[in-house]
Amino acid sequence: MSLDVAATKPHERLAAALSAEMDAVNVMIRERMASEHAPRIPEVTAHLVEAGGKRLRPMLTLAAAKMCGYDGPFHIHLAATVEFIHTATLLHDDVVDESAQRRGRPTANLLWDNTSSVLVGDYLFARSFLLMVETGSMRVLEILAGASATIAEGEVLQLTAARDLRTSEETYLKVVRGKTAALFSAATEVGGVIASAPEAHVRALYDYGDALGVAFQMVDDLLDYGGTSATGKNIGDDFRERKLTLPVIKAVAKADAEERAFWQRTIEKGKQEEGDLETALSLLARHNALDEVRDEALLWIAHAKAQLQLLPEHDIRDMLSDLADYVVARIS
Amino acid sequence: MSLDVAATKPHERLAAALSAEMDAVNVMIRERMASEHAPRIPEVTAHLVEAGGKRLRPMLTLAAAKMCGYDGPFHIHLAATVEFIHTATLLHDDVVDESAQRRGRPTANLLWDNTSSVLVGDYLFARSFLLMVETGSMRVLEILAGASATIAEGEVLQLTAARDLRTSEETYLKVVRGKTAALFSAATEVGGVIASAPEAHVRALYDYGDALGVAFQMVDDLLDYGGTSATGKNIGDDFRERKLTLPVIKAVAKADAEERAFWQRTIEKGKQEEGDLETALSLLARHNALDEVRDEALLWIAHAKAQLQLLPEHDIRDMLSDLADYVVARIS
Repeated sequence: MSLDVAATKPHERLAAALSAEMDAVNVMIRERMASEHAPRIPEVTAHLVEAGGKRLRPMLTLAAAKMCGYDGPFHIHLAATVEFIHTATLLHDDVVDESAQRRGRPTANLLWDNTSSVLVGDYLFARSFLLMVETGSMRVLEILAGASATIAEGEVLQLTAARDLRTSEETYLKVVRGKTAALFSAATEVGGVIASAPEAHVRALYDYGDALGVAFQMVDDLLDYGGTSATGKNIGDDFRERKLTLPVIKAVAKADAEERAFWQRTIEKGKQEEGDLETALSLLARHNALDEVRDEALLWIAHAKAQLQLLPEHDIRDMLSDLADYVVARIS
Repeated sequence: MSLDVAATKPHERLAAALSAEMDAVNVMIRERMASEHAPRIPEVTAHLVEAGGKRLRPMLTLAAAKMCGYDGPFHIHLAATVEFIHTATLLHDDVVDESAQRRGRPTANLLWDNTSSVLVGDYLFARSFLLMVETGSMRVLEILAGASATIAEGEVLQLTAARDLRTSEETYLKVVRGKTAALFSAATEVGGVIASAPEAHVRALYDYGDALGVAFQMVDDLLDYGGTSATGKNIGDDFRERKLTLPVIKAVAKADAEERAFWQRTIEKGKQEEGDLETALSLLARHNALDEVRDEALLWIAHAKAQLQLLPEHDIRDMLSDLADYVVARIS
């Protein structure tokens, strides 16, 4: 892909518009993940932080703050905070999922051990709170501590709900808010809060992040039944891991007795055979499950973009709108 | 043991003096560990919280606040916070140590799984920050976030230092501060802070908690080479787990070539044979290692008690002094 084409992606246009701030965030991340006494900590963290994720979450914070007219310096601390919390949850997720790969590289728990992943995650989490304390904003602490609780709660809920066919769309949404949307919405909200934006703007920023996060996760779950390996996921990973995501929840809701037995065997009991993935795909198609999930994701994106209309005109506002479209571009 | 004898233990006298406050702390703990969406969370937490630890850390916070004339309500929040952080670290420790027992009961990671231990720990940690936010004191957040970072750092340091004969007494002290003293000192410090005590008193409270915590851990490490099963530890657990604690560090420092080879084989390489524990004990005795550790623990306790003299007279001050003596009573 040529640089010109790449430069048209909304998250890259955002990164360009916020490049000075992102540089400052990266400096702060390196500085604050250091540990005088325990060199293992920056080793493990660098492995993840330098792995070159898109830094979408800290960019959301910077974008929100800038759009609301803030000119520093604490949006940098908050963006670093958000990335630390994200990195800590990735480290703990890898232990939870027993993952061997993350962003195309071996995970920290494979390179070091589960122990390092747990403890370094804890360290980053604690450091993120110290960064927030520096901002002097109690409201910011409340928002991000609340998001952290929602994240953990969503993950625990997923543990018990994932392989249970009784899981409702409502429960799915709670899990998705925990897994993804809680940190997105907190990231945009604190950007508005630190800029002392009017309450209506702060609320719109929260709702934008929430809707973007929900759509983001729905697209991810959808691509698992229709993506290509170019997306970094293989078709059927969630099925093989017996994760009850929205497409399957919708198909289960419309299943006849025979289909229900199929889902019970493959998801609840985990007794999967050759050809089961193909059967699952045909059941999803029969009940229009993938189309329905796509339509819902598009609705969430429309909702996200509508929130932006409540905010003042700004270049960055337009980029956030394009970013919302980009999230669903892969499925529409 | 009769009730009368039991009632003379300093931590029980403290518990009696603070019983109304401790009841309020227990109510708050139960209330705040609830999760509307994920019933697994209170299940796991209750297992630990109800297991009947001594609640020493929250008592330290209540004691410090009361001694400094505070009459509420936020010492309750802070005591619950301290117990949540403690419980979260226990949950994560059990994953790290792959422990099967804690306080004489099966650990959460054995009853549920590692995953629940990691995520419920994260949840409690996040909830603890929400409790602190309610106090409105940024300084309290800074102290407890800093302590949380020190705890994680100490644990990571222990991972790399535990089986390395080059580990110095200085490193041991850093590990001990992380494992134990950081939360003790934060617990007493925030009690003074919430009471708006003069800085000199806050500092004395911090130093008392720090010295008490260091002595507490030294006694624990000492009893591992000389305790009885009545203490809940079996002699030689640390040796078998190849933990380089202070008694061994002191013996290694004075080891001749043959003794060094013994420690290398048993601790660094982990090749232990029948009779090795007896050899280890005789080497510790030969170099007076256990006596030296005991003397150091007594010095830390003297230091802790001296700090209390900087604080105004109070019944509770005397109980904290007795508590310090009690910590070393098992070894002196």
